[in-house]
Amino acid sequence: MLALAFDGVAARVVERTAAALPDRPADEAQLALRLGGICNTDLEIARGYMGFRGVLGHEFVAEVTDAADRRWIGRRVVGGINCGCGTCASCANGHGRHCPRRTVLGILGRDGALASTFQLPTSNLVAVPDSVPDEAAVFAEPLAAALRVVEQLDEQRLDWASADVAVQGDGKLGLLCAIVLAERARSVTLFGRHAGRVPLPAGVRELPAADTSARGFGVVVEATGSPGGFEQALTRVAPLGSVVLKTTCAGKTTAALAPIVIDEVRVIGSRCGDLAAAVAWLGRARLPVRELVAARFSLADAEQALAFAARPGALKVLVEGGATS
Amino acid sequence: MLALAFDGVAARVVERTAAALPDRPADEAQLALRLGGICNTDLEIARGYMGFRGVLGHEFVAEVTDAADRRWIGRRVVGGINCGCGTCASCANGHGRHCPRRTVLGILGRDGALASTFQLPTSNLVAVPDSVPDEAAVFAEPLAAALRVVEQLDEQRLDWASADVAVQGDGKLGLLCAIVLAERARSVTLFGRHAGRVPLPAGVRELPAADTSARGFGVVVEATGSPGGFEQALTRVAPLGSVVLKTTCAGKTTAALAPIVIDEVRVIGSRCGDLAAAVAWLGRARLPVRELVAARFSLADAEQALAFAARPGALKVLVEGGATS
Repeated sequence: MLALAFDGVAARVVERTAAALPDRPADEAQLALRLGGICNTDLEIARGYMGFRGVLGHEFVAEVTDAADRRWIGRRVVGGINCGCGTCASCANGHGRHCPRRTVLGILGRDGALASTFQLPTSNLVAVPDSVPDEAAVFAEPLAAALRVVEQLDEQRLDWASADVAVQGDGKLGLLCAIVLAERARSVTLFGRHAGRVPLPAGVRELPAADTSARGFGVVVEATGSPGGFEQALTRVAPLGSVVLKTTCAGKTTAALAPIVIDEVRVIGSRCGDLAAAVAWLGRARLPVRELVAARFSLADAEQALAFAARPGALKVLVEGGATS
Repeated sequence: MLALAFDGVAARVVERTAAALPDRPADEAQLALRLGGICNTDLEIARGYMGFRGVLGHEFVAEVTDAADRRWIGRRVVGGINCGCGTCASCANGHGRHCPRRTVLGILGRDGALASTFQLPTSNLVAVPDSVPDEAAVFAEPLAAALRVVEQLDEQRLDWASADVAVQGDGKLGLLCAIVLAERARSVTLFGRHAGRVPLPAGVRELPAADTSARGFGVVVEATGSPGGFEQALTRVAPLGSVVLKTTCAGKTTAALAPIVIDEVRVIGSRCGDLAAAVAWLGRARLPVRELVAARFSLADAEQALAFAARPGALKVLVEGGATS
């Protein structure tokens, strides 16, 4: 069995015997990777972010090879990556994603999905309908993160019919955000460096990242992944508007914060979303999968996959786990 | 007639003749200052913040000496400090406080209240009932700013019954925030440097500013006025919680923003509030005015008043305008 593991120095494909796998709790399923995705967070982790050691990867579609509830066995699944303790106040309130004792697949205290076999609580699994191919299902996790923006703006009771939304960054996550926001907002403006490389819904216009003429957006989603994106978002948002912050940067950011106060802007941190909602979305809509995918590698070549994904502006790099029904 | 004016170099008490006053539009009332307050923003402006030139001051209780609607004449009033254009989309939507062409009393494009006589749109005025003395009414503007926090948390549908709120900064604004939040929240913790100098409602506990043990607050109101307060607030707020940002600092702030994303925190910029709500509050509740006021000066001595207010930790400094009914 193969796995792409980070040992604190480098990410390497390692061979593991079944005996080397961690014990599997009764409430966790054993999964065989069909297709995995590489996210910028994986690249950050492979540079030491989060202090993680272990198998990388949290975007996947897999086959269930074992589970206490045997109805899962053989099913094709995606899964929520946060594993709460199940007993604390956060978990009791339905906020297991924010459990202070959580593990996170391939990110925090739990081996990830870029492996021939891995495990996850059965309660995290979401079955993928036959109508959704692996190449779309593997986007469920980042798509859920994009749909989380919509959910949070609904919580803010955004008036979508009059909402002009900007998305900063036309990388993997920014594109997904633009696609899902275009279903709801009056207009979506995508600021980026690669206009035209992915077909976007009608109603999405693309502008250069450095454009300073378009301003006054009711919502700005910051997904550049760069430290300067936050302050730029503050120049583009309208008074009483919202900046949805997706970018996580290691280290500190310097920005003038007075505009937040003077214009009474809301800054909304946004992380993971609901995998079931993402699968439902994939069941009724279409991602431009062909254009979103930059390359595919086998798990044996996952080091090259990681290097390919690290190239500036690279779109989604997929890793084939070998499991097929 | 006297006025405390900033000429770009220093704030000085100047003598002005009636002829030197700006023309008064028909929709504006002429006001005679009874009592004014000095705010930290005035101190910042007197150091060059906002690039303002003119008469300082935006906290006041005054007597109306002239107005087109003669029913106002002789009334004791406070007033909203933001003067929208009345015709733009912001004004049409009831957000005149965020009108891009607004003037702001003593802050932006409009002479302020620390003057024997000054003017403000009649529509900004709020009459003060006889039951509210000048010494309380002069707090209406900063009290409105504190009540704005409550209003914004209501907009977020905060569950007050389970809300543990922290207020950072026990200066003038922080104290007012703690007082009004104590009416609604389950608990209020005030982090500051001057515990015990102002009597606070039951349910407010005071902790040293540097305390790092108390964490996980559902709401943190940042009112230290210091650049480090923002990052400190992020260490104190619970996942999915809110940081209400009151502090405006000239220049840039450096902070690690990743916790905003990882913990899905909301940062809510908060500025001015509704003066009518503040007057209503003063009509039904009590501020510990005696302890909140550090000193009183006459308008002729307003330069000394400003210097006194600039001393570290100074509470409210009042300026007597001379008008009395």
